[in-house]
Amino acid sequence: MAEIVLSLDHLHKLAFDVLASNGLSARQSDAMAKVLVAGQRDDCHSHGVWRLIGCVKTLKMGKINADAEPQINDVSPSLVKVDARFGFSPLAFELGSRVLVEKAKRSGIAALAINNCFHFSALWPEVEAIAAEGVAALAMTPTHSCVAPAGGNKPLFGTNPIAFAWPRPGPFPFVFDMATSRIARGDIELHKRSGSKIPSDWAIDENGQATDDPDKALRGAMLTFGGYKGSALSAMVELLAGPLIGDMLSPESLAFDEDVGAAPCHGEIVIAFDPAVFAGAAPTDNLQRAETLFEGIVGQGARLPSQRRFDARQRSVEHGVSLSKELHDELTRLIS
Amino acid sequence: MAEIVLSLDHLHKLAFDVLASNGLSARQSDAMAKVLVAGQRDDCHSHGVWRLIGCVKTLKMGKINADAEPQINDVSPSLVKVDARFGFSPLAFELGSRVLVEKAKRSGIAALAINNCFHFSALWPEVEAIAAEGVAALAMTPTHSCVAPAGGNKPLFGTNPIAFAWPRPGPFPFVFDMATSRIARGDIELHKRSGSKIPSDWAIDENGQATDDPDKALRGAMLTFGGYKGSALSAMVELLAGPLIGDMLSPESLAFDEDVGAAPCHGEIVIAFDPAVFAGAAPTDNLQRAETLFEGIVGQGARLPSQRRFDARQRSVEHGVSLSKELHDELTRLIS
Repeated sequence: MAEIVLSLDHLHKLAFDVLASNGLSARQSDAMAKVLVAGQRDDCHSHGVWRLIGCVKTLKMGKINADAEPQINDVSPSLVKVDARFGFSPLAFELGSRVLVEKAKRSGIAALAINNCFHFSALWPEVEAIAAEGVAALAMTPTHSCVAPAGGNKPLFGTNPIAFAWPRPGPFPFVFDMATSRIARGDIELHKRSGSKIPSDWAIDENGQATDDPDKALRGAMLTFGGYKGSALSAMVELLAGPLIGDMLSPESLAFDEDVGAAPCHGEIVIAFDPAVFAGAAPTDNLQRAETLFEGIVGQGARLPSQRRFDARQRSVEHGVSLSKELHDELTRLIS
Repeated sequence: MAEIVLSLDHLHKLAFDVLASNGLSARQSDAMAKVLVAGQRDDCHSHGVWRLIGCVKTLKMGKINADAEPQINDVSPSLVKVDARFGFSPLAFELGSRVLVEKAKRSGIAALAINNCFHFSALWPEVEAIAAEGVAALAMTPTHSCVAPAGGNKPLFGTNPIAFAWPRPGPFPFVFDMATSRIARGDIELHKRSGSKIPSDWAIDENGQATDDPDKALRGAMLTFGGYKGSALSAMVELLAGPLIGDMLSPESLAFDEDVGAAPCHGEIVIAFDPAVFAGAAPTDNLQRAETLFEGIVGQGARLPSQRRFDARQRSVEHGVSLSKELHDELTRLIS
């Protein structure tokens, strides 16, 4: 298949043009394009520019506020809330995270709650952006109900990701971004498309029985990772990124969608921790102490999370990214 | 085997007397006794009064500061640090958590960092105490290295628990307290004692191979729950409750012990979230929204975490707790 190689700047322009020509405001388009290009750059295709197709679909469905200017509410020395006003999440995050980092640097710990946003991005670009300021970050969101609680048999939780980043010397933080579901819903869909069976610990059918049939799994419910422990964490994500911040649970977010299949609309919580404030006298010693943990991991032949993404990032920065001609053409056609 | 039934007050007096007569200050003894009695009351025997034997052993080893008065450092509107001065953790938590809850109620989010404490208790009594004030809480500690990172073969992480509680109407919060290891180290020891094999996904031998031999597992390393995802969470616990707050990682805590087998000495982080401040206008609606999540769990036949403990608690409050005569005698003999 023919491939088209683009520099990151060119890819950003392409993504921006797709979004802006479909009615998204320039500020929203720029913030969203950055996040999608970051996904493509890191070979994280599920969160790459392929998502522009879904963004345009979401825009056309008319639920989203394409001109939304996020509204910042500075609640306390450690809490900032951003009302995304039913725009996409990246601009709300960009504006809110600046305030969040300032607050963390003064108070040690701070939280950013984003409300009423259509969420379409991975969480790692967000926690990485905070870690780049020397501040650790923990982020969570609900999604749409598709995962059963441990011991149950019906979709309730979303895939409910948890992402965390810790600042390190050098270009890359320690970072992970993981669904609390056993796998991504897309993995089951891929098996369905290719006609292959799924491992029997991924999902259950409508009767709550383990299944290796992707069709039955999609009509049933996905499972959490790590059994009842993953299930407990998934509930925590619902609570902290839903009721705590005054936003929707995954079942509410799914109902809000009214079966149109738009990006999920819900809230997000990001917690930031400044090691310098927490550690008091000796912040450098403490960052060094963290490095000994990482050495203990890689020194025994284990890998730090996200290394594959960082390898891809270095390649992409140097050589650009390649898109299939098919995808490139499809995206180009979306520019009116 | 003969059983001796004690009221919770009597059990508290027994625990207090054991600790105080072995040189622990009255304030430390009272705080520690409360936590151990709570464990016994909830049928959580691994964290019950049986631990008094280990407490006395730790006291006799001379590493602990038996008269320690925790020192509170009010760092910012959202951060309080408590130096436990090498005493046990419960008194430091009791004093620090009052400040933590006040800060959360003013600022929305706040953190308590406890440094230099010997940690001997479960985390659920702590997060439950905060939830009883209407505030959600998330707590983490490292322990002693005994768990390999995913892909590795040597002990690095501790069992690194994560506990979370969310306030509910009625007597009991939503609460979980889980090790990020696949199981507790004690579970392997119990299999060794009974001469039975362990499931092969609990641990690896010294060569990094899966093993069903508890002896080989104890010389090798335990595994995290949920594969690489549990491993990533375990690393996060090390970072947030170690380097972030200026305290020891699990390998450092193990080295500090110098093979004497005392309670692990390390730090702890507790993060508190006040739903009233986060939610702004409609806190009651948001607590109600959380209840719909719990209804969604139990309504499909799944259980909320900690129900077994709460059932036991109700029985214990009504009927007292029973100790084996053997344990009761052993504890009584520890009172000099």
